[in-house]
Amino acid sequence: MADYHQMWKDLGMDVDNHDVLCNVLPGAIGDVFLSQENRPEKMDYFDFVLAEVHGVRPAELVDFREKGGKVFGTFCAYVPDEVIFAAGGIATGLCAGSQFWVPGGEKYLPANTCPLIKAMLGARFDRTCPFYRLADVYIGETTCDGKKKAYEILGTDVPMHVMDLPQMKRDKDVKKWAEEIRELKALVEKETGNEVTPENLAENIKKINAKRSALKRLYDLRKEKNIPISGTDTLLISQIAYYDDPERFTQMVNTLCDELDQRVKDGVSVFPAGTKRILVTGTPMAIPNWKMHNLIETSGAAVVCEETCTGTRYFENNVDESGKTVDEMIDKIAERYMGINCACFTPNTGRFDDVVRLAKEYDVDGVIDVTLKFCQTYDIEGATLEKRLQEENIPVLRIETDYTDADAQQLKTRIEAFCEVIGE
Amino acid sequence: MADYHQMWKDLGMDVDNHDVLCNVLPGAIGDVFLSQENRPEKMDYFDFVLAEVHGVRPAELVDFREKGGKVFGTFCAYVPDEVIFAAGGIATGLCAGSQFWVPGGEKYLPANTCPLIKAMLGARFDRTCPFYRLADVYIGETTCDGKKKAYEILGTDVPMHVMDLPQMKRDKDVKKWAEEIRELKALVEKETGNEVTPENLAENIKKINAKRSALKRLYDLRKEKNIPISGTDTLLISQIAYYDDPERFTQMVNTLCDELDQRVKDGVSVFPAGTKRILVTGTPMAIPNWKMHNLIETSGAAVVCEETCTGTRYFENNVDESGKTVDEMIDKIAERYMGINCACFTPNTGRFDDVVRLAKEYDVDGVIDVTLKFCQTYDIEGATLEKRLQEENIPVLRIETDYTDADAQQLKTRIEAFCEVIGE
Ligand code: SF4
Ligand code: SF4
Ligand code: SF4
Ligand code: SF4
Repeated sequence: MADYHQMWKDLGMDVDNHDVLCNVLPGAIGDVFLSQENRPEKMDYFDFVLAEVHGVRPAELVDFREKGGKVFGTFCAYVPDEVIFAAGGIATGLCAGSQFWVPGGEKYLPANTCPLIKAMLGARFDRTCPFYRLADVYIGETTCDGKKKAYEILGTDVPMHVMDLPQMKRDKDVKKWAEEIRELKALVEKETGNEVTPENLAENIKKINAKRSALKRLYDLRKEKNIPISGTDTLLISQIAYYDDPERFTQMVNTLCDELDQRVKDGVSVFPAGTKRILVTGTPMAIPNWKMHNLIETSGAAVVCEETCTGTRYFENNVDESGKTVDEMIDKIAERYMGINCACFTPNTGRFDDVVRLAKEYDVDGVIDVTLKFCQTYDIEGATLEKRLQEENIPVLRIETDYTDADAQQLKTRIEAFCEVIGE
Repeated sequence: MADYHQMWKDLGMDVDNHDVLCNVLPGAIGDVFLSQENRPEKMDYFDFVLAEVHGVRPAELVDFREKGGKVFGTFCAYVPDEVIFAAGGIATGLCAGSQFWVPGGEKYLPANTCPLIKAMLGARFDRTCPFYRLADVYIGETTCDGKKKAYEILGTDVPMHVMDLPQMKRDKDVKKWAEEIRELKALVEKETGNEVTPENLAENIKKINAKRSALKRLYDLRKEKNIPISGTDTLLISQIAYYDDPERFTQMVNTLCDELDQRVKDGVSVFPAGTKRILVTGTPMAIPNWKMHNLIETSGAAVVCEETCTGTRYFENNVDESGKTVDEMIDKIAERYMGINCACFTPNTGRFDDVVRLAKEYDVDGVIDVTLKFCQTYDIEGATLEKRLQEENIPVLRIETDYTDADAQQLKTRIEAFCEVIGE
């Protein structure tokens, strides 16, 4: 790994503390990824991006900013990258998936806050994440209570623009979201000094659609009886989707899919025949949170799909490309994003339909519904989801967890017991 | 107390279980209210309403419904009673303040949910509250995550209409709230069969303004050096405001204020000279939650104001009465309600200004910020509020609590210690 210490210092990071994080990463990568058998060769790109996660992409962003470029940090699958890239900005996900950042966040937030939000604040205020240093403006949204109020605290330290997401999905709400996207456009235009035009917006709608299509292609391959790639590997790819360069990412996913196509032809699977197929649903799994996938896939089951924001919610449905004016295109963008079924919405029955549909499409033996601790929306909705799945005769296991390893053994026992009884 | 058992049975209540609640009420009233010294005589009306809380007002509502009237249950200070009464409906608060209902709610909700929300679901599903039985339609709002998602569960058992409250306060958000109020109007018109007209709406705007003005008059009297009424008594009045007949309530509050005016003239106080003056801020205290006021006022301090939804947020600012058409009036109603500063909004700096202003207006020695456990919005905002108050040199004590008595002794110790050091 190249030495990025000078860059981190220049970014105002707490380099000594950050070294602690860097030192545990290779071990984690070894345990979770390199230990897997028969991985696709083309995972090498994603392994490389992960190994250099705080180096290679941040270095690109440093370059970009030195040339006057602006970086926008985002926290939710609802924020449309299309508009940011159209104005010549770069969007980068800032969701934080490591326990390493949680104690730092607890200095600012009640203990009863979801670990993702605590980690967000820890990553910022502890100065141990280069992406948090590199983003010129943070784009928040009024999704859950915790994030909504945590943005106020982030806003004391960094320019923060919050989009007001409606909590329902009537026609007028889609229009309201389009208005919020217009405000985002005005903001990125002002920050970058570049105008969003019909040309550059159309181009970037296509670009992000291509990225979504590549992910869809990858996920479709997991529907095969012989599963050509592990869920853990796919999760990593979904996580990297949030911050990699979109065009390169698309190309790399498609290259991987070419290899997986061949595997399908050859009947190659990374799992033994008869491995139980699991659909994971619930809260997002931000990098480097691989806890549940690792537990499930080392318990003799295979994760074949994620109905999460690091999964299908991120890539299903493309933006309609028929818009001619910027206004029309933004309306189409709003429609596409308002199609995401997040528990922040009420009602959110569309999500139950999604889970049932995906369970069938991916031919799963059971669903594991994973909620981050203190996430009230997904937790409360989980009870209704469970009922719906029971009605459909789809077995479901509900798990509430955080970023620590304290419950790992107990979860493994529950997962193993669940996998034993399903699909027989 | 009259015997309402037949009425409760007719309402489909679990009468045996409800008797348990009825049996503890007289003791609680004795401890919290009747034990106070030198209470205003005109508290007798509110004592009566409280003693017959599940009898006298429910009986009125039963009558009203037998004549074809419709009752609308509400859960938030943001829902405008004016529109409901204009259509000839009756609005009644359904916020639930007793631990008695919490275990029932825990069957439907995660443990990490605020007690107010748990009590709401317990009161409904255990069938131990006549108001929950009497309301024909429940009106919810997208305020906090917990309520938003709990309404989905209530909606499986009772007609539920949810209003989408914007989470910001820009001009367009006020307009959006006006739109939601128009939808509420359409709903109550449909349910009641009565049209909302400029006449009946103007009349009810005046009626509810008069109620707010009476509460304002009551609160202004607490600004006096000699405090003519306890905070505990005033809290009870604020709680009753949510479900009593508005005109009678207004009259009774004004009658009480006449007596308090005389007390002020006579220099009568319910507290010894030098008693520390406390402003309570934070989450609402739904009936019969008198825990904090009782603890504070039995610790030798006086609560002189509540910056809560069972306090100033409920009555400050009247609706502008200059609207001529229904549309204009609804715009004015939206403006008034969007002036409430709830932690569900982002940013919510107006609340900090309110607290500082009220601390000065009521000449307080300190602020006690009370958050119900697992209320993320008020809890996260509390840290920022604390900072602001420290900047203003206003002492503040932050308390997180629930509906149980488990922490009472410990809280009393903290409150006593706080009151000793402030205002010297
Ligand atoms: S789960 Fe909801 S709030 Fe979280 S990233 Fe997804 S859409 Fe956004
Ligand atoms: S997991 Fe839940 S609580 Fe955490 S950020 Fe996402 S929606 Fe909010
Ligand atoms: S605290 Fe907020 S959500 Fe609760 S009643 Fe008041 S305005 Fe409504
Ligand atoms: S106290 Fe907080 S969590 Fe509870 S209902 Fe009110 S806003 Fe929601």
